[in-house]
Amino acid sequence: MNDPTSSCELGSRPPAARPESRVLRFQPGFRWEGVPAEEYKAQGADWCGVRRMTLAGGAGAATAFEVRYFEIEPAGFSSLEHHAHEHVVIVLRGRGQVRLGDAVHELSFGDTVYVAPHTVHQFSNPHGEEPLGFLCVVDAVRDRPVPATSP
Amino acid sequence: MNDPTSSCELGSRPPAARPESRVLRFQPGFRWEGVPAEEYKAQGADWCGVRRMTLAGGAGAATAFEVRYFEIEPAGFSSLEHHAHEHVVIVLRGRGQVRLGDAVHELSFGDTVYVAPHTVHQFSNPHGEEPLGFLCVVDAVRDRPVPATSP
Repeated sequence: MNDPTSSCELGSRPPAARPESRVLRFQPGFRWEGVPAEEYKAQGADWCGVRRMTLAGGAGAATAFEVRYFEIEPAGFSSLEHHAHEHVVIVLRGRGQVRLGDAVHELSFGDTVYVAPHTVHQFSNPHGEEPLGFLCVVDAVRDRPVPATSP
Repeated sequence: MNDPTSSCELGSRPPAARPESRVLRFQPGFRWEGVPAEEYKAQGADWCGVRRMTLAGGAGAATAFEVRYFEIEPAGFSSLEHHAHEHVVIVLRGRGQVRLGDAVHELSFGDTVYVAPHTVHQFSNPHGEEPLGFLCVVDAVRDRPVPATSP
């Protein structure tokens, strides 16, 4: 006799979980209930003091985009890199800088950055004592970043 | 002789403008430099006191998503509606409420709302004197909202 719990017949699997509407509660210290603060990417020498929280999209989601919240500690910086996919960044916490090509722009609350395809870019927090926190929206399907070198 | 300025030959047109990396500066009163505050949608009886600003995506953009900032005045509300596309909402200003199906949730800074496909939903600002302001990210390609009726 077959064990129904180990059946692989088509149609015998439980339906895939459908996402449900919900509110992710904001918490003190710029965290969200149930959302882990992960390492930005595999440890490397080209970034420092960056954490990532995925607020929407990612594994199992149906949206064509992902919404992530990044935090860069004072004196920290993201990788200097470029790629074909675009970034839309909205600053929520602290102050910092973004490098776009050869230009460096100061950033504070609400400033919104569009990073066009193939622009060499880097976010950093050279000022103050507060983390630089920002939302970053990207296409769910996107190419891998390519490291860039400073001129 | 042909007038080259009126030529329609393939290859004679100027290349389409490519979007450039840029910073949209945040301004006092939750506005962004160069971004118009538009009416939420064509005037109707099912919403009140709502304005929309498109921060990224929309006409000519390559991203698979759009980022909009909405503001709802005190006593205002968005349409009660449903649709197949999903919303991801992040509150930036003031306080308010969201209705998701039969449940009503209070909202304040940082709270993040995921509206799943076909959930009847409505945002409102029944409290206070400050506008309720939030980012709303959607797929660039999406279905039209369908008005819903209160039970």
